[in-house]
Amino acid sequence: MSKTNSGNFFEDFRLGQNIVHATPRTITHGDVALYIALTGSRFALTSSDSFARSLGLSQAPVDDFLVFHIVFGKTVPDISLNAVANLGYAEARFLAPVFPGDTLVATSRVIGLKENRSRQTGIVTVRSTGVNQSGDIVLTYVRWVMVNKRDPDAPAPEPHVPDLAAAVSAADLELPPALTFTDYDVALAGRPSLWGDYDVGERIDHADGMTVEEAEHALATRAYQNTARVHFNQFTESKGRFGRRLIYGGHVISIARALSFNGLANAQKILGLNGGAHVAPLFAGGTVFAWSEVLERAELKGRTDAGALRLRLVATKDCPCADFPYKDNAGAYDASVILDLDYWVAMPR
Amino acid sequence: MSKTNSGNFFEDFRLGQNIVHATPRTITHGDVALYIALTGSRFALTSSDSFARSLGLSQAPVDDFLVFHIVFGKTVPDISLNAVANLGYAEARFLAPVFPGDTLVATSRVIGLKENRSRQTGIVTVRSTGVNQSGDIVLTYVRWVMVNKRDPDAPAPEPHVPDLAAAVSAADLELPPALTFTDYDVALAGRPSLWGDYDVGERIDHADGMTVEEAEHALATRAYQNTARVHFNQFTESKGRFGRRLIYGGHVISIARALSFNGLANAQKILGLNGGAHVAPLFAGGTVFAWSEVLERAELKGRTDAGALRLRLVATKDCPCADFPYKDNAGAYDASVILDLDYWVAMPR
Amino acid sequence: MSKTNSGNFFEDFRLGQNIVHATPRTITHGDVALYIALTGSRFALTSSDSFARSLGLSQAPVDDFLVFHIVFGKTVPDISLNAVANLGYAEARFLAPVFPGDTLVATSRVIGLKENRSRQTGIVTVRSTGVNQSGDIVLTYVRWVMVNKRDPDAPAPEPHVPDLAAAVSAADLELPPALTFTDYDVALAGRPSLWGDYDVGERIDHADGMTVEEAEHALATRAYQNTARVHFNQFTESKGRFGRRLIYGGHVISIARALSFNGLANAQKILGLNGGAHVAPLFAGGTVFAWSEVLERAELKGRTDAGALRLRLVATKDCPCADFPYKDNAGAYDASVILDLDYWVAMPR
Repeated sequence: MSKTNSGNFFEDFRLGQNIVHATPRTITHGDVALYIALTGSRFALTSSDSFARSLGLSQAPVDDFLVFHIVFGKTVPDISLNAVANLGYAEARFLAPVFPGDTLVATSRVIGLKENRSRQTGIVTVRSTGVNQSGDIVLTYVRWVMVNKRDPDAPAPEPHVPDLAAAVSAADLELPPALTFTDYDVALAGRPSLWGDYDVGERIDHADGMTVEEAEHALATRAYQNTARVHFNQFTESKGRFGRRLIYGGHVISIARALSFNGLANAQKILGLNGGAHVAPLFAGGTVFAWSEVLERAELKGRTDAGALRLRLVATKDCPCADFPYKDNAGAYDASVILDLDYWVAMPR
Repeated sequence: MSKTNSGNFFEDFRLGQNIVHATPRTITHGDVALYIALTGSRFALTSSDSFARSLGLSQAPVDDFLVFHIVFGKTVPDISLNAVANLGYAEARFLAPVFPGDTLVATSRVIGLKENRSRQTGIVTVRSTGVNQSGDIVLTYVRWVMVNKRDPDAPAPEPHVPDLAAAVSAADLELPPALTFTDYDVALAGRPSLWGDYDVGERIDHADGMTVEEAEHALATRAYQNTARVHFNQFTESKGRFGRRLIYGGHVISIARALSFNGLANAQKILGLNGGAHVAPLFAGGTVFAWSEVLERAELKGRTDAGALRLRLVATKDCPCADFPYKDNAGAYDASVILDLDYWVAMPR
Repeated sequence: MSKTNSGNFFEDFRLGQNIVHATPRTITHGDVALYIALTGSRFALTSSDSFARSLGLSQAPVDDFLVFHIVFGKTVPDISLNAVANLGYAEARFLAPVFPGDTLVATSRVIGLKENRSRQTGIVTVRSTGVNQSGDIVLTYVRWVMVNKRDPDAPAPEPHVPDLAAAVSAADLELPPALTFTDYDVALAGRPSLWGDYDVGERIDHADGMTVEEAEHALATRAYQNTARVHFNQFTESKGRFGRRLIYGGHVISIARALSFNGLANAQKILGLNGGAHVAPLFAGGTVFAWSEVLERAELKGRTDAGALRLRLVATKDCPCADFPYKDNAGAYDASVILDLDYWVAMPR
């Protein structure tokens, strides 16, 4: 095996293959502080040990999207270093909470392979899993990417497209049993609107905008030890399609989620991701705005203190969201839209 | 109540009103490391657990201005989201020291209200207080801001302008009893000049300059969970008065304080703020310089190991301070001045 | 002594002089997280407590170059504030590992002084040492700098040029006894190539490129409390030789070391620095590439689980390293080269 990793190409993957990803990573208070500084997140549960203790946890858990980005970052050198496009996510569930000091290891299993008609590329689908030092699964999700072939003439594997759920069923969402909202303080959380106050179809403009600088997205993406080249190497990107570095789509998710505090202050915990599309790229200097729509309101099994909301989170570039920019009648996204995310949160009732 | 916070307008405030601010925040080693990286602060007490232990504390306390910014940041969504101008500070006292792991909650009491003649705005004065997880007050200060009215025709409250001290009396300054300077090591601290070496009227040029980038002030201000829009949203600010984002005035204070190490290396602890004016805005790319003047030298009650210095800290933009730029004979600030801060520090004697 | 530090000039140094540097510094998880975010380092030993424990340590040690930069940074105000050039390093040995929570103090001993013929400057050579709170030496190294004289007519000291080893002898390298590679997991570390797989003369292109922004190098250099003015003050530098801020050479070392993961994933521990030259300056916006050459392969005394590799690490600016840019036949560096570092690493066998 070469000492330098040039990444896997489409023909290197095998259906059912299991991949252990480097580098195991201990998430610390340092990562948490940096995540707040990079995103401006203000959710009380992840900001305050005292608040987390009042809800039954030992300390503030790590932000779910920080966990996601760390696990995702590990998978890049093996799964998507030669990817042309990150096509989608599905069936993500956040299971055990992660605390500062926990060490995460990521693994992936290849669950789908399908060569494209051009024979230049193929679709690789993996189920990736993050496990803590006790062996608990903290996160599992599916993503699929279009990966280059090293050799267009390499034989194609038997095509296999996995069956994926359109959304995680509410019955499969896991709110940590220790986390209870019985003594929830809405003043400290920031806003009084709880689960029952949100109606299906309701749309919320998150009002604020956040401009992203090169140093910021690069810091974030390096913090996740994500090695996708397009985010870091201006020398090469200056000769590429856009002439500049692409901002990691996960940073857009985190910024949009942080903006969503203004309207969803009590959406303390991410439970799952049903799907998501990075509709258009973001570049440094762009300002992210966001709005949300309530897609579904569901009970959580065995819980009377909390419920689940299924939300669409839409982020735009340089476009305030008072009129909820999304798709036209033909189903094409508005030119301002950069992210369309479908996810589940837990909220006190 | 709306799910989205659009902030309070002048007519929303009531004299005597108490406001509990979101989001409670645990300050960690991550915040401390980031604060050093953002400001370049080199004071030994906040940099070294060993040094802090040699002075009687259990570990290095959190920088006083980091505490100030965290408490201040919490107040923004409720007090100054619709502010036109941050007019002043007074009567700030730093009380119990804050350590990594402590959680701060901020509250404010409205102590002054006065509509302006235009009826478009009014002055709101609040006393804000930061409290730790044990209920100890760590910081209390007064600030007043000019806040927009939602409706110019809304009736004006009875005008009330609180009586504020021109300066915190030295007798009211609190140096934590556990913190003693008996075994103080001037070599590790950086410089031998102690309390008795500073004369009233003495001026010190801090010599160095620090340029501020967009990513830096935005990281700092998000770390404080300060949501003032002018610092973050280039899309909106590009259409505004200055065409660009304003740097949070508190970041200027922190940079100037860090620069003041060169001349005031033994000013280990901030005890109080008497007043302060953000004389002019700073924008990214500007270089901050600073100088100090000794305004007063005072004993600290019951302490023979330490004394207090009252200092004027002046920061300029793109202007070295060898000739102490300040005000002209008519009392107008030099065009280079961006900050004029009057504060108390503790220094070993 | 003046309250403001204007740094030592050549005639202020005395042979044999010992200098205790301010500011003692506790390195925390915050610094570690920031270091990863600034450099993108992915070595498993410094990223994961679990991985470090599997190798016999109590937790992940602090990255050796972060330790180096912190110790180096302390020496700047006393040694090189008036330096014209940082000429070289030698005889660096990393001894006891450093863990988050450790406090480092730096001292230097003047071991060489030699006025230059111009009488405007002189060469100062110091042996600098970093010591932890238990009194263990964690790092010792020699560096020499060209320092301005305050007064060209000041008398020159007796010239003394210390004898320095061309390289640290392998017999003098210290791999912490507690750190053993018996249960080393190459999958988690990232790559299977171990000590015996590297041949003397072998060259490795690290493939990736990393662009550096102003905010990034300034954050890093302030995190190290390094006060060299050329890195921070755009107002002054805009009038200087380059018209802009210079990036701290140590940041280039750290970026190149992080890039070297791709090809040297198992080079878990730096043991020593034999020499190094900052061949050309790097400015913000430049993209760093790197390649390595194996100079020597040595056994480590008493160890059958690990061996040492002596490596040349070359970093370039805006120049991919597939053809290993270095020197021409006359011995002159290629215009793209910015760093030429000669160092020892430990690797499992």
